Amino acid sequence: MKLYGDRISGNCLKVQYTADCLGLPLAWEDVDILKGETRTPDFLALNPAGQVPVLLLDDGRTLAQSNAIIDYLATGSVLLPDAPYDQARVREWLYWEQYSHEPYVAVCRFHMHYQGKSAAGREPWRVARGEAALDHLEAALNGRDWLAAGRFSLADIALLAYTRLAHEGGFDLAPRPRVRAWIRRCEDRLGLAPAPAQNGNRMS
Amino acid sequence: MKLYGDRISGNCLKVQYTADCLGLPLAWEDVDILKGETRTPDFLALNPAGQVPVLLLDDGRTLAQSNAIIDYLATGSVLLPDAPYDQARVREWLYWEQYSHEPYVAVCRFHMHYQGKSAAGREPWRVARGEAALDHLEAALNGRDWLAAGRFSLADIALLAYTRLAHEGGFDLAPRPRVRAWIRRCEDRLGLAPAPAQNGNRMS
Repeated sequence: MKLYGDRISGNCLKVQYTADCLGLPLAWEDVDILKGETRTPDFLALNPAGQVPVLLLDDGRTLAQSNAIIDYLATGSVLLPDAPYDQARVREWLYWEQYSHEPYVAVCRFHMHYQGKSAAGREPWRVARGEAALDHLEAALNGRDWLAAGRFSLADIALLAYTRLAHEGGFDLAPRPRVRAWIRRCEDRLGLAPAPAQNGNRMS
Repeated sequence: MKLYGDRISGNCLKVQYTADCLGLPLAWEDVDILKGETRTPDFLALNPAGQVPVLLLDDGRTLAQSNAIIDYLATGSVLLPDAPYDQARVREWLYWEQYSHEPYVAVCRFHMHYQGKSAAGREPWRVARGEAALDHLEAALNGRDWLAAGRFSLADIALLAYTRLAHEGGFDLAPRPRVRAWIRRCEDRLGLAPAPAQNGNRMS
């Protein structure tokens, strides 16, 4: 399998985290979003929606949408519970991530970290929704180690990708101790070095 | 099963369409978004994310996110193919709908149809992305009757809900004949009366 992706994209990193967790070999074909490489005719032939990541299977078939890809890869694995209701609760988080978290937390990061905007230059409505998404995560983790089905799952992987980078979008996790502890738990499961500024203090 | 929903919401109607198609009885508990009924303490106890639809199962468990709900209801049915890759392609459309279609096509409709904005008062960036989403659908339907897996599926139901109401958000389907024909096919499958203005001309 080959992943067409950009390493600046949490949506792409989700797929890598999932593959690593399941021991699936994944070759990476770098696609540079900032250079417009998701808009070339070759790339649009792979995914007419013009978005990374795209998974290319060994038989030549393709699959887009990060959360559809990780769901496919995790079929029958420890990352997706067997019971239909538990699976549905995992997917509930995956849809919430794409609708209520990524467009705010990740897009603010893109504006600041890659387009050079200041924190003050962010769109106020987008910041407010990003803050609300992080508050929702903090509340959801009250009394729970993992987001869904009582165990580490795709729900955690999907939400981790941009939440651990939220500081790059001007969001402060210092007042969200449950989110910070959950990030550390997820990073530990995935063997990731801690994100540098998730405590609200730049550590390096 | 009971659905907490608002009949103005395509996200809620998707669930009704799916239940009708599968012959599943579904009681409806009306929640009025415009009156703030998704923000009351009682509703937030059902869904802390404060969004409709919410499915309440007979055993008291709940499930939110329209596309997670229809995926759950359609498990093992004709609306979701058996093969994991085909299922993944259906879900690819479901995620695309929530990320690249609904926030533009449905939100423009909400602003015009429920908040009284004029077509000219819509946000230009949102209109552009809505137009792009409808163009993407038109291209995807080139040579195909259905969006995924060569058959009528959840992908069609999820995309139908707001696409058939796109005119209420100021979008014109007249230059998109494949989308119009697909809407008619879907409506025929679901036994729905044709949406009144999907041809760009108000018919009643």
